[in-house]
Amino acid sequence: MKSTLCEILSEVQKRVKPSPADRDALKEAAASIISKIDLLAKDSNQEVKGILVGSAARNTWLAGDYDLDIFLAVPESGDLEKAMKIARRVGKDYEEKYAEHPYVHARIDGFDVDLVPCYQLPDASCLKSAVDRTPFHTKYIAARISGLEDEVLLLKQFMKGVGVYGSELKVGGFSGYLTELLILRYRSFPGTLEAACSWKPAETIDLEGRGKVPVREPLIVIDPVDPGRNVAAALTLDKMFQFVAAARCFLKNPHLEYFFPKNPDLLSDRELLQAIDERGSQIVLVEFEAPEVVEDVLFPQLRKAEGAAKALLERNGFSLLRSDVDAIGRRALMLFELESWELSSVSKRWGPPVWEEAHMARFLAAHPDPISGPYIEDGRAVVELSRKWTRASDLLAEELPRLSLGKHLAPAVRSGYKIYAGTELAALPGHELRLFLTRYLKARLRMC
Amino acid sequence: MKSTLCEILSEVQKRVKPSPADRDALKEAAASIISKIDLLAKDSNQEVKGILVGSAARNTWLAGDYDLDIFLAVPESGDLEKAMKIARRVGKDYEEKYAEHPYVHARIDGFDVDLVPCYQLPDASCLKSAVDRTPFHTKYIAARISGLEDEVLLLKQFMKGVGVYGSELKVGGFSGYLTELLILRYRSFPGTLEAACSWKPAETIDLEGRGKVPVREPLIVIDPVDPGRNVAAALTLDKMFQFVAAARCFLKNPHLEYFFPKNPDLLSDRELLQAIDERGSQIVLVEFEAPEVVEDVLFPQLRKAEGAAKALLERNGFSLLRSDVDAIGRRALMLFELESWELSSVSKRWGPPVWEEAHMARFLAAHPDPISGPYIEDGRAVVELSRKWTRASDLLAEELPRLSLGKHLAPAVRSGYKIYAGTELAALPGHELRLFLTRYLKARLRMC
Repeated sequence: MKSTLCEILSEVQKRVKPSPADRDALKEAAASIISKIDLLAKDSNQEVKGILVGSAARNTWLAGDYDLDIFLAVPESGDLEKAMKIARRVGKDYEEKYAEHPYVHARIDGFDVDLVPCYQLPDASCLKSAVDRTPFHTKYIAARISGLEDEVLLLKQFMKGVGVYGSELKVGGFSGYLTELLILRYRSFPGTLEAACSWKPAETIDLEGRGKVPVREPLIVIDPVDPGRNVAAALTLDKMFQFVAAARCFLKNPHLEYFFPKNPDLLSDRELLQAIDERGSQIVLVEFEAPEVVEDVLFPQLRKAEGAAKALLERNGFSLLRSDVDAIGRRALMLFELESWELSSVSKRWGPPVWEEAHMARFLAAHPDPISGPYIEDGRAVVELSRKWTRASDLLAEELPRLSLGKHLAPAVRSGYKIYAGTELAALPGHELRLFLTRYLKARLRMC
Repeated sequence: MKSTLCEILSEVQKRVKPSPADRDALKEAAASIISKIDLLAKDSNQEVKGILVGSAARNTWLAGDYDLDIFLAVPESGDLEKAMKIARRVGKDYEEKYAEHPYVHARIDGFDVDLVPCYQLPDASCLKSAVDRTPFHTKYIAARISGLEDEVLLLKQFMKGVGVYGSELKVGGFSGYLTELLILRYRSFPGTLEAACSWKPAETIDLEGRGKVPVREPLIVIDPVDPGRNVAAALTLDKMFQFVAAARCFLKNPHLEYFFPKNPDLLSDRELLQAIDERGSQIVLVEFEAPEVVEDVLFPQLRKAEGAAKALLERNGFSLLRSDVDAIGRRALMLFELESWELSSVSKRWGPPVWEEAHMARFLAAHPDPISGPYIEDGRAVVELSRKWTRASDLLAEELPRLSLGKHLAPAVRSGYKIYAGTELAALPGHELRLFLTRYLKARLRMC
């Protein structure tokens, strides 16, 4: 039986809208933490003020999320370290984390609470740190979203389901704030999907008509509280159009699975070997210990290393099908799949046109003893030389540490890495690794 | 002991200048053939006139060449077939050949004689057939070359020695007439080499300043008797600059070997296998029965087939190092050397950008069941499909007859061919084939 769009959306709402009891519990927890902050500030005679921000403050949090973002605001002339001191005393079970500035992550009454020091500023145009913008976002959305909260929940859950939710650099998708702005712009969940169907690269959304459009990016959403900023700066072209493609399919043939996809069945050892055999390619997996940095620091470096390794392989004549990276616990992974992985021992070096006498002399002097040549092809001198790397896996194994790998990755790779190829992959342990390989081999998006 | 340029050139002249006895013998043979033609014409009451043309008529033939070109001229309104009838009766040991028109090749008194029917015309601007130009060339050169004949001999022998002499399409080098024009232009052999050192593509030589320069070609030498024609039209860019490179080396370090190179030592079976092993490539040799056409018809078709096969290989993802063709007796050969000869079973098919909705729908409909995908890369839809050809040798073996191969080659290839690869080459019989492989593997030009 095929459900109507209405039936599906009402079913999704049932599942993602927090119950009144949940809402009360969240409000209570937030109020209690904020009063604790205010009390600690008073005790220590500091001007620090607790503020609830994020989706909890805007009634746009999804049921089952027990996240609270509470900011500790100091005056513009104040000291964030004083707020940190208080943050450390709010909960017992906590750890310090580090984004642009340090903050505290604590578990309090079953909630995951981020306690983030910030400056209290008159407006968002004179930020002292990136997080200072957040209270303005909360104010802006809270004042306008009333009556549209359920549409935000539908859009967030749809984006989660199709794999494009989250502005962290590992994902490169849509942030919560961005979904709220999209709903403010298009006024409903189906309206947003319909609009997305005709998005093009550099699509621009400017709610307040303040139009300082920044550089060309896939999607440009002018921040209403800071018009020089693109709210969608972290969104990649591919995630943007993964959303567009899914929106098209969903509107043609709506289904609950877009919101709540089944987990892919893990490939068994036998299925994994079959898939590798069917592809008849060479799959090379590089594994090393991930440096101890947050994912937003790790993933850009992993991607940079992936790019450098791809360029290395292509520069040496190998051709790639695809690649991917991941971090599983403390294991960092880079996967390269090669279309051609073995080349002739001899390689062709093109010299200058024969009529450029001075260049010619230098070229010939540089290659006094080629395997073949010099000869002339298309008017240019050519020599054939011994190729240093005839196998892609040897090239990777040897040259990887010499690549430009990023600040934290470089020492991690240099302190040791392992390379697995082909059927060796089926012998590697770990559920998450198998999930990574399964996702790679079964790569298939909903597209229309 | 290093010889001076003077010593070398005088030694070359000793070897290449026909002796007075040789000259007399040639003159006598020519005179006797021409009088026989005139007699046969008179007997059969035909207006046909024998004319000596070519290098024999210009005193620019190399010692040891026993070639005579004798034309049988009919009036402008006459019939070439009547001249052919006479040509067939000049010598007993003859065969009929075919260029633009039929002609006779005969062995007479130890000479190889081409007996070529042509029209006798008032000037070279109103040709009825391509060969009609030749008597005008002979007249033009004979009137001007006196005193420079030895320079022509040196240039011809140098070009022979470095492998660029001959305007037949197999070689794509310099014709005899072209060497004579070069000497008329530069006045000496060393002068020609020095001038060549600064040649560039589209170098233009216009002795009579009549300057109707034709299309862009490597070397443009306006025919003094037919200014719309480029005498160097058959010269390829690579042969032109093979001459330039050799000229540069010779002037820096003159040596008799440029004129009389040693034959390359044939590779033994063991050396051939070693060379193949050192190159670590895949060498594929295609052999079939050559169609019964002259080399000037065969070679352009062989090269066209070579190009079509290269394009086929590259279109299917394989990369080539080099290739070559030859014809040995009735065996036609095409050799392809691959840099990569085995590819993954899966191949990547790029679709349209995701924002082009109509294109996307067609692309996805065309690939309903890919091995992987669809997924998005750089904003475009991608699917991974099963590759038809994972081995270059299978692709060649299967698809060769379906290529666009030229009029005579197509039926020849379709009636059967053999493919040999790698070490199989060492087991193939034939001195000439081994010479072809030796030349290919030892390819090395004199270049400075």
